[in-house]
Amino acid sequence: MAVAQINVIVGDFRANADKIKAWIKKARKGEADVVLFPELALTGYPPEDLLHKEGFVQKNLATLQKIIPHTKGVTIIVGYVEPVRGRLYNSAALISDGRLLGSYRKTCLPNYGVFDEKRYFHAGDGVVRFTQKGVTLGVTVCEDLWFADGPGKRLCREGDVDVLLNISSSPYHKGKGRDREKMIRSRARQYKSFIVYANLVGGQDELVFDGQSLAIDPKGEPLAHGNSFVEEMVVVDLSVQPKSRMKKGDKSKPTGIKTYRAALRDAFKEKPGHMKKPLPKRKFRQREEMEEVYQALVLGTRDYITKNGFKKVAIGLSGGVDSALTAVIAKDALGAENVVGVLMSSPYTSKESVDDSLALAANLNIETLTLRIETAMEAYGRILADVFQGMPADSTEENIQARIRGNLLMALSNKFGWLVLTTGNKSEISVGYCTLYGDMAGGFAVLKDVPKTWVYELGRWVNRRDKKIVVPKNILTREPTAELRPGQKDTDSLPPYPLLDKVLADYIEEDRSFKELLGLGLPASEVRRIVGMVDRNEYKRRQGPPGIKITPKAFGKDRRLPITNHFKA
Amino acid sequence: MAVAQINVIVGDFRANADKIKAWIKKARKGEADVVLFPELALTGYPPEDLLHKEGFVQKNLATLQKIIPHTKGVTIIVGYVEPVRGRLYNSAALISDGRLLGSYRKTCLPNYGVFDEKRYFHAGDGVVRFTQKGVTLGVTVCEDLWFADGPGKRLCREGDVDVLLNISSSPYHKGKGRDREKMIRSRARQYKSFIVYANLVGGQDELVFDGQSLAIDPKGEPLAHGNSFVEEMVVVDLSVQPKSRMKKGDKSKPTGIKTYRAALRDAFKEKPGHMKKPLPKRKFRQREEMEEVYQALVLGTRDYITKNGFKKVAIGLSGGVDSALTAVIAKDALGAENVVGVLMSSPYTSKESVDDSLALAANLNIETLTLRIETAMEAYGRILADVFQGMPADSTEENIQARIRGNLLMALSNKFGWLVLTTGNKSEISVGYCTLYGDMAGGFAVLKDVPKTWVYELGRWVNRRDKKIVVPKNILTREPTAELRPGQKDTDSLPPYPLLDKVLADYIEEDRSFKELLGLGLPASEVRRIVGMVDRNEYKRRQGPPGIKITPKAFGKDRRLPITNHFKA
Repeated sequence: MAVAQINVIVGDFRANADKIKAWIKKARKGEADVVLFPELALTGYPPEDLLHKEGFVQKNLATLQKIIPHTKGVTIIVGYVEPVRGRLYNSAALISDGRLLGSYRKTCLPNYGVFDEKRYFHAGDGVVRFTQKGVTLGVTVCEDLWFADGPGKRLCREGDVDVLLNISSSPYHKGKGRDREKMIRSRARQYKSFIVYANLVGGQDELVFDGQSLAIDPKGEPLAHGNSFVEEMVVVDLSVQPKSRMKKGDKSKPTGIKTYRAALRDAFKEKPGHMKKPLPKRKFRQREEMEEVYQALVLGTRDYITKNGFKKVAIGLSGGVDSALTAVIAKDALGAENVVGVLMSSPYTSKESVDDSLALAANLNIETLTLRIETAMEAYGRILADVFQGMPADSTEENIQARIRGNLLMALSNKFGWLVLTTGNKSEISVGYCTLYGDMAGGFAVLKDVPKTWVYELGRWVNRRDKKIVVPKNILTREPTAELRPGQKDTDSLPPYPLLDKVLADYIEEDRSFKELLGLGLPASEVRRIVGMVDRNEYKRRQGPPGIKITPKAFGKDRRLPITNHFKA
Repeated sequence: MAVAQINVIVGDFRANADKIKAWIKKARKGEADVVLFPELALTGYPPEDLLHKEGFVQKNLATLQKIIPHTKGVTIIVGYVEPVRGRLYNSAALISDGRLLGSYRKTCLPNYGVFDEKRYFHAGDGVVRFTQKGVTLGVTVCEDLWFADGPGKRLCREGDVDVLLNISSSPYHKGKGRDREKMIRSRARQYKSFIVYANLVGGQDELVFDGQSLAIDPKGEPLAHGNSFVEEMVVVDLSVQPKSRMKKGDKSKPTGIKTYRAALRDAFKEKPGHMKKPLPKRKFRQREEMEEVYQALVLGTRDYITKNGFKKVAIGLSGGVDSALTAVIAKDALGAENVVGVLMSSPYTSKESVDDSLALAANLNIETLTLRIETAMEAYGRILADVFQGMPADSTEENIQARIRGNLLMALSNKFGWLVLTTGNKSEISVGYCTLYGDMAGGFAVLKDVPKTWVYELGRWVNRRDKKIVVPKNILTREPTAELRPGQKDTDSLPPYPLLDKVLADYIEEDRSFKELLGLGLPASEVRRIVGMVDRNEYKRRQGPPGIKITPKAFGKDRRLPITNHFKA
């Protein structure tokens, strides 16, 4: 068995087909009998409303036809969109030895969280298996496997399936790989079947897919792991004792299970009794959680930038930990030569911030630009002097500074074709401690779903990984400040981040009520204030750039709250 | 029968309950037997992910309980969220004479366009009717009625229903009222039943609900129309010849139809043979299409502003038709005293533009502020001089101007608490002919879904309506220009709007392919360019402010395309 955990691009049929063909070739060299590709590998996942375009669905069918001739001597399972009498199905094509044998139509359609599959697809109601070299294999797609009573159960109980296959496009969040493995191991024990699981790799807008494909034996023990966040082929030998009760000549078949025979004419010209060499030991490393999150951020950033035709990014370096970590991730994603750090100091910027930013840039070996915003601040001051006459300075003047910086970064973007990475973290964005069109201005928000406490952890992790100071120590230890007025500290407006992040996680990710949020270390009045800020700032988040989901519930299509909303939790 | 087409607020349980109680009182005064309230009238529609909050669902139940005692002598049907063993239903409560008789659970859940009901709700599988004064009434919710084979069919065929009720929260787009009436009339003929249809009124984020409730007789003839975009009570007398085949003492009932008896103890203390006075003729006026669109924009704007706690708005007046129409709408929505026109001229601004803006403001009697952006332009020029050295001016410098204006408007917003209305139209936003964080900066985009050609039509319509020049003639006739460089015209970058809008409507609203878009008057190379611009600018739209849906497919949750997308239509 070979699992091709590949990175495809939504709507790039030619590139996706070329990749699939190349990986079939690779699998054939590895003497694989069956090759799995991810769910909707032909179209990319999720294609969203592109599925409403007739031409998109037709192109996907034409692409499938082009792949078929490339499957001589091998069986492949690949995800595609199957139109049947005006309805669309999220299907797995079963292609063997140059022929499309049939299709399995996904039964369980997720329509929660980031998923909208019922918007597009009808649910299939059949099950599909095939036999090859005396072994019976069943086909399922992603969500099907998450339900113990799903189609896998029927296939294994009634269909005598020895190996249950699952092709997935299952997006990442912290810990998801472990959850998935636990679920699949328990499914294997329950179904008394091998399970081979193929998952997509790559970034698509706010989602990043982590691979981590799997082969599990009927006792629930893992036989092979795909690595996280890399394209690779996972090849595994399964020692199957076929449990099929169907004897030669026995025509009795379980009702309603579609069965195909994958007869491979020239499968590697095997002689009878040919013994394959045992596979070499696979290189696999289980990552610790923060490393996994870091990988997700690097791949999500790289794919957003490059799949959208950009090469180089600009990042405003403030001397804070958010912009520092963003720059580190950008360097790992794109190379130091493609990252420009922009220092935009005002009269409130401390020497400490400038020094720390320059030290970081030197550590990363990235180019810097220094721009001074004071003259622009003065210009706005003059333009607004009459209108604001007699009114005290407040957050207005702070926001003007943030927006001058946004304007400068966008000017660099417009002139040089760089994409601007914003640096805001999930804690800030949750409570609206950020300026719309100011520090929120940019194409991609790397840390959008990363709470501030994790930003620190990731910064420390990077220094441990590289066994040297990458993120200057002062950046990791000094008190956070926006430096928009003299002596400003984040704690002037917000509780300490460790306390804030606890409340935010429970409120945002778990939908806990105000009462349930008490007892996390903050006084009731502070909890009420935090919850109010989260609710009130939905309008800001709605206009923020996309960023990578790494928690169970990210802002964006994962959490769809109205802006106009009078409910108090 | 009374239909209460009311304007509720998402999550404002106290205000919604107070309104429902007040309108029950009103209906009772009008001697109504049955009062209909819209779908999910208790929670507001759509509540989106608030439905994931346990407290929200519980508050909705508690609110329902508070309403029940206010239904003495009358029957009401009101939409609420019904939790049953961990599942949620979009239900219609049947409350009569101080008792909750039962609930009907919506069968057909829309999960397309702007709708995500399968994300939240389970589909009911039963039907519900009730008898009152010898008449049998069936209950349905919104989408149920749009399917000829839906629950209405069963109710009327097997359930001897005389009057089919439908409570809806059906959002507006141009022509929707007419489509709805046509559908309901055909349903009445088909089911041989009266149909009384209640629809919500009001703006909720990007949606606006138009009311236009209806009573239709079994021949498909309208008996009463609710007006568009206003809260009102539609009271209608139905002369019902009960078709019930159930005789007294006959215990045979159709299987599986839940039947309730609404026995009103003291219904207006009617004497036997009491003849009600005939109802006075209702005031109803069918609006022409542009007037209806205009009403939608006014109500959508007013509700967004006021329901979000704002009172006053700022609008950048450029001398163009978009900002002029936005100001007119804002005045009608909020009153002249709550609209501030901001003129922000640069060296490229013509005297013509300033004069036209001032004339418009005078016609509307709104306050104006004049700010000159030249010093800020110079400041950015100086700050970026070194970095941009030797490079020719391009759209970068144009965007800087737009972003200076954005920054100034936001400064006014921050200082004075005004909400900024942006002025971009759908044509511009489609092709990205607008500056992110520049003219796109603001809280609400009134014309977001209005094509440029309609903007002109609406401008002319306003002048006709008021029988005087409101929008200065020059604004309606001069060639459109962004005035970001000397002599600039929209047609330097775009085809003439009448041709552009045809291509955009077919591409965006109908998902036509490139080939299908040929033959609309533009050369193939231009069509290719336009389609490319629409695709490429998805990232800009994603960061734009919300605005009112008035076409069959608006940007926002109506059209969910990936940003990362290599598909060419």
